[in-house]
Amino acid sequence: MNIILLSGGSGKRLWPLSNDIRSKQFIQIFQTEDGSYESMVQRVYRQICAVDPAATVTIATSRSQVSAIHNQLGEKVAVCVEPCRRDTFPAIALATAYLHDVCGISEEEPVIVCPVDPYVEQSYFETIEELGRLAGEGQANLMLMGIEPTYPSEKYGYILPADQEKISRVSTFKEKPDAETARDYIRQGALWNGGVFAYRLKYVLKKAHELIDFTDYEDLYAKYDTLTKISFDYAVVEKESDIQVLRYAGEWKDLGTWNTLTEAMEGPSVGETLMNETCENVHVINELDVPILCMGLKDVVVSASPEGILVSDKEQSSYIKPFVDQLDNKVMFAEKSWGSFRVVNIEEESMTIKVTLRPGHRMNYHSHERRDEVWTIISGEGRTIVDGMEQPVQAGDVITMQAGCKHTIIADTELKVIEVQLGKEISVHDKQKFELDE
Amino acid sequence: MNIILLSGGSGKRLWPLSNDIRSKQFIQIFQTEDGSYESMVQRVYRQICAVDPAATVTIATSRSQVSAIHNQLGEKVAVCVEPCRRDTFPAIALATAYLHDVCGISEEEPVIVCPVDPYVEQSYFETIEELGRLAGEGQANLMLMGIEPTYPSEKYGYILPADQEKISRVSTFKEKPDAETARDYIRQGALWNGGVFAYRLKYVLKKAHELIDFTDYEDLYAKYDTLTKISFDYAVVEKESDIQVLRYAGEWKDLGTWNTLTEAMEGPSVGETLMNETCENVHVINELDVPILCMGLKDVVVSASPEGILVSDKEQSSYIKPFVDQLDNKVMFAEKSWGSFRVVNIEEESMTIKVTLRPGHRMNYHSHERRDEVWTIISGEGRTIVDGMEQPVQAGDVITMQAGCKHTIIADTELKVIEVQLGKEISVHDKQKFELDE
Repeated sequence: MNIILLSGGSGKRLWPLSNDIRSKQFIQIFQTEDGSYESMVQRVYRQICAVDPAATVTIATSRSQVSAIHNQLGEKVAVCVEPCRRDTFPAIALATAYLHDVCGISEEEPVIVCPVDPYVEQSYFETIEELGRLAGEGQANLMLMGIEPTYPSEKYGYILPADQEKISRVSTFKEKPDAETARDYIRQGALWNGGVFAYRLKYVLKKAHELIDFTDYEDLYAKYDTLTKISFDYAVVEKESDIQVLRYAGEWKDLGTWNTLTEAMEGPSVGETLMNETCENVHVINELDVPILCMGLKDVVVSASPEGILVSDKEQSSYIKPFVDQLDNKVMFAEKSWGSFRVVNIEEESMTIKVTLRPGHRMNYHSHERRDEVWTIISGEGRTIVDGMEQPVQAGDVITMQAGCKHTIIADTELKVIEVQLGKEISVHDKQKFELDE
Repeated sequence: MNIILLSGGSGKRLWPLSNDIRSKQFIQIFQTEDGSYESMVQRVYRQICAVDPAATVTIATSRSQVSAIHNQLGEKVAVCVEPCRRDTFPAIALATAYLHDVCGISEEEPVIVCPVDPYVEQSYFETIEELGRLAGEGQANLMLMGIEPTYPSEKYGYILPADQEKISRVSTFKEKPDAETARDYIRQGALWNGGVFAYRLKYVLKKAHELIDFTDYEDLYAKYDTLTKISFDYAVVEKESDIQVLRYAGEWKDLGTWNTLTEAMEGPSVGETLMNETCENVHVINELDVPILCMGLKDVVVSASPEGILVSDKEQSSYIKPFVDQLDNKVMFAEKSWGSFRVVNIEEESMTIKVTLRPGHRMNYHSHERRDEVWTIISGEGRTIVDGMEQPVQAGDVITMQAGCKHTIIADTELKVIEVQLGKEISVHDKQKFELDE
């Protein structure tokens, strides 16, 4: 099957583990059978591959997530980068054009669009596969997934099917209701709208050409920033009469808040944690190198990352967003295509970071106008290129770079470096990239 | 007045702010009128100086606290170092001999011994001053402070006075009772034993010579490790018949647990903190550079330092000690005579620390056998001496030192340095000190 995973925005509701460049889907919090931890995106990708090892998975996302995606899923997965945020219709149109023009998928083939972050059991993806098959057979122009509701939620949109069959015509859509109305919908046999669409490729391609003036993927990509923001629901779904819905009755959780996320955790904690016996329904996610000790807490989530510490009653944690907006959020760690970095010290005119490069990877060849840098290699082996001159480096070596000097570092094995940045105006924007003739 | 402040042990009950080399009395947590924060020891010292600007203050403590004492109180305060821990009788005997032999205090002068960490109002030290005056006048061999109890505490020893006068003969001492017995003592007019003693210098000097074979302070210091551990209460107080007690009725708190410590805080937080409006009776002490966000908590204390994070119900926090013993406690920050350091990164074969030197101070001239070091100066000006060669340094300079090489750094202004230590067996014990001819 051809599946497009929509990988969305910044997700402040899971602060301090999500930040401007790390969305919630990349938090490694779910314990796997071998004891290691995987993220939402890794879990979903693993489940898709288990159902269909030949699946073509394309992730539609912004540039800022590309490194994290490749670090977590490997290089095999296709990434369709949105040059800027333009809501779901442009995103799905671009990804569909990408499948057609770049991957060579035929116009007749079915495509399934799915959020990247549902917490579901395997059978969800079996249902998705069936959804694709039905779309491919021309069962309807648009096939949706309807989730059997387990309670009258106010957080989801509802689909009212024409009958109680496994596959039904859609009679109408309802926006997020209040609990009373939701109860009424459920009595009428309504389903939650899971945000999953399946269609034949040519269907969305035709819709895209009707609404946007473009020739092919390249052209659409080039003019992406001129497109109007509009959702796929509004632009396509609500205007389509030939829609059917396929029921899914398995587990389905939206892990958008700390409260729901901790429900999905295997054990009470991730990271170095100690709880005394008087703790009840407490979850701790600790990404720091020092221990967290909890005593006498009830219904509390504690989460610590290099960017801050949250201690919250679980119910209250869903109101986090406006408080996070008030905080001075510095990016203190990030995944890059070549590895990762973490800020370890900030002073008025210096910043010290720990850089980890993956074997075989290297930074861009670059320079800074307004800061000097000092690298101290703390482990591994590699090479530096400074103003065109290459030299081997290993633990203990020190490289100093004046402002203006072009430099990069190449990891032959995993390479760890303490980088001290020195200058009056240290900024991530002070960076010029250069081509490197190797 | 001559006052000896007993500055005690490590205090795991206030983890993570106290550690093996920083005791609770050095935590800067009490807001002063100018908005800055002071520690217990700073508060007590300020209160003593307000009552008697000419007071001779001597702090009896272990070597590990000397730097913190001078950093917090300045160089003027006298420190009587116990070479090892031998309980309160040897400590008071040593400090008394120090006052006599080193400071030249006459045998007839009164001396007051007082814990370094009571949280009290100014009138406590007025009572202490009176206690000293009474001892000096020969009112009794030993004068004690009796604190008017406010509840039947099980945590304190009790003094039963012979009558209800302001100054009374002591009729008997009682060990920490259960609450029922405490109620009974209070009905009989008992007072809490505040651990404060006043006497004429010659009185304790005589007791010391009776129990220990020594000539003078130097000699006592030299044989200190051979002394038997014994408390002043057991060795002296319980055997003395001529004891009187002076009442104190003001505020007196023992800030030994997070519960009592947070009661004494001026506001709900120290450090970068945000609480939502549903938090009730929550206190946060944050020594990290990143924010702590609290939501929907009740009766909770949160404390974060470079060594760990505590999140505890306030009542439960008094049971912390066995849990802290279970943690792998690394010393991640410390005050030194020349400034302070903080560990910012630990790897298998490297450790990175931020070093801050106070202007005019320097490290010991030293070398390491099993690690190389790299200094990157990040701010300030000073000089390094490496294998005898002195050179000026400033922000941006890098100094590399191979294992075995002798080195030191001297701060002319405040000097900050990122030090990367590289080696297979990095240990604080791997250090040889040398004399430096300047």
